Amino acid sequence: MDTNEDTLRRLRTVDGHLRGIIRMVEQGEYCIAVIQQIQAVEAALNKTSARILERHLDSCVTTAVRGGDPIERERVLQEIAEVFEMSSKV
Amino acid sequence: MDTNEDTLRRLRTVDGHLRGIIRMVEQGEYCIAVIQQIQAVEAALNKTSARILERHLDSCVTTAVRGGDPIERERVLQEIAEVFEMSSKV
Amino acid sequence: MDTNEDTLRRLRTVDGHLRGIIRMVEQGEYCIAVIQQIQAVEAALNKTSARILERHLDSCVTTAVRGGDPIERERVLQEIAEVFEMSSKV
Amino acid sequence: MDTNEDTLRRLRTVDGHLRGIIRMVEQGEYCIAVIQQIQAVEAALNKTSARILERHLDSCVTTAVRGGDPIERERVLQEIAEVFEMSSKV
Repeated sequence: MDTNEDTLRRLRTVDGHLRGIIRMVEQGEYCIAVIQQIQAVEAALNKTSARILERHLDSCVTTAVRGGDPIERERVLQEIAEVFEMSSKV
Repeated sequence: MDTNEDTLRRLRTVDGHLRGIIRMVEQGEYCIAVIQQIQAVEAALNKTSARILERHLDSCVTTAVRGGDPIERERVLQEIAEVFEMSSKV
Repeated sequence: MDTNEDTLRRLRTVDGHLRGIIRMVEQGEYCIAVIQQIQAVEAALNKTSARILERHLDSCVTTAVRGGDPIERERVLQEIAEVFEMSSKV
Repeated sequence: MDTNEDTLRRLRTVDGHLRGIIRMVEQGEYCIAVIQQIQAVEAALNKTSARILERHLDSCVTTAVRGGDPIERERVLQEIAEVFEMSSKV
């Protein structure tokens, strides 16, 4: 499957899930059930990020590392270290 | 502000953010930028869950602990321990 | 099992694990293996926190909610909301 | 600073912190204070993993991507995607 298509399919599913949660809150459903659904949305978003990164490593990173520009290479590797560090905080 | 209104406002903001990310992907924006926006959405969802739990502790939990039913009390406290444990995993 | 004993047993196991990781690094083991072991230690610490909170809800929180002091009750519930919010960030 | 030296320094500091937490529990300190210290240890471990990964990207990954072996290259990039996905769950 095309990279963007897989990401779009995942994000649209998450968006449907999120709109379902909004309806739950509008109808006054039990707050713990709402928190559990929000946690399920977060797990799906983590999975989506991981898939995006996986393909990024395979394409952009490979290109940058093989390319002749050391500054570009450093920038691309630094970005990955930053999203890794951030991923533990959300 | 009313409990549900605050939660709804937060979730609708997250939903707008998420639809913005879908547009980013449709337009082929850089994948690291997409991951960073997904991480921002996750941080906003964490904040929303924490606010919901805070009010839950103040209302349902207080009612359950003061009420005469030990099984109901145990159930309510158990639920909180479970969402806490889950919160570290998403 | 006594509360403190269970917590101490878990923390001492984590400490043994962590000292094993230090030896791995001293011996120059592969860095991805080190990261995976660090992630296992973090998972064990999450589990330990969850168990501590579970018993706290059962004892201190129940006492505070039933007690006559509304400021103390508010303080105890606030603390739980704070550790919950923090738990998503580490 | 040498890679391993920085990692060892960080892990030994975490270990000292963890042994301090064990003493807190032995002395019966308040459980919320214990949870907060455990969360601080987890934050320090996250930081340590991020630093290890950063240097790994700079050395092993660059070598693997530039090397002539496509299976080795795929393996190294796959590992990074896996620790990234795991990092959101601990």
